[in-house]
Amino acid sequence: MMKTNGFMEAAFAEATAAGARGEVPIGAVVVRDGMIIGRAGNETRALNDVTAHAEILAIRRAAAAVGDERLLDADLYVTLEPCTMCAAAISFARIRRLYYAASDPKGGGVEHGARFYTQPTCHHVPEVYSGIRESEAAEMLKAFFHDRREA
Amino acid sequence: MMKTNGFMEAAFAEATAAGARGEVPIGAVVVRDGMIIGRAGNETRALNDVTAHAEILAIRRAAAAVGDERLLDADLYVTLEPCTMCAAAISFARIRRLYYAASDPKGGGVEHGARFYTQPTCHHVPEVYSGIRESEAAEMLKAFFHDRREA
Repeated sequence: MMKTNGFMEAAFAEATAAGARGEVPIGAVVVRDGMIIGRAGNETRALNDVTAHAEILAIRRAAAAVGDERLLDADLYVTLEPCTMCAAAISFARIRRLYYAASDPKGGGVEHGARFYTQPTCHHVPEVYSGIRESEAAEMLKAFFHDRREA
Repeated sequence: MMKTNGFMEAAFAEATAAGARGEVPIGAVVVRDGMIIGRAGNETRALNDVTAHAEILAIRRAAAAVGDERLLDADLYVTLEPCTMCAAAISFARIRRLYYAASDPKGGGVEHGARFYTQPTCHHVPEVYSGIRESEAAEMLKAFFHDRREA
């Protein structure tokens, strides 16, 4: 197995925990200086809040932890291509690098639809790396929605 | 003076209050059945949170108030064209009608840039009405940024 820094694995652990709580299994971590400073799984159902995506919560928690709304030199790892809302929030937070696993043709806002980072209204563009453990992330979401349909 | 339902005026009151707190003066209210069920001004500085835009906070508060993350049959009034993040959140919350005052060529995501509601990745499109008290809203923001530069 390829050696990794373990951060995408931490995002997957958040995704798995979210799925176990009945949430859509998506997880994210924010990393700075080799340390996780914010982590979250999707909590839209528990918090009754459409904005409680993993990325938004991880960014909010990281900002609270470091006492700065701008997360300069921080990287975000997430198991699915961020939606348009989250892509914009990642830009606002000045995230340096965005790493994501599966792409999301239906709802993604990075390489699909709004492609927010290509817009003239986007004033900070992170470096983007995708496809890390892609099939595993896609499988996790597929199984979750299959189980929900069966239930 | 034209008679109005008073909801954009309530959004302006939130914007004025935000400005008085040193926040960017933008305000929003969520309305259902003729009643305000969520209201907020921008709180990014106070909450140390780049996602704490007036629209996001008003939606979260409305969802908490009614106990449902989806704000069916609810309308949102805001003093500035929503950014891409907020435009997406408004869609996710299933807002019926979006009313905004000034347009925002630099950061807007409705009629500028991502134009989120025209994207195939947008799965709920609100009715959009703009230009209500536009010059007043634009003036308020202009004065705020002018004062900040002078300070």
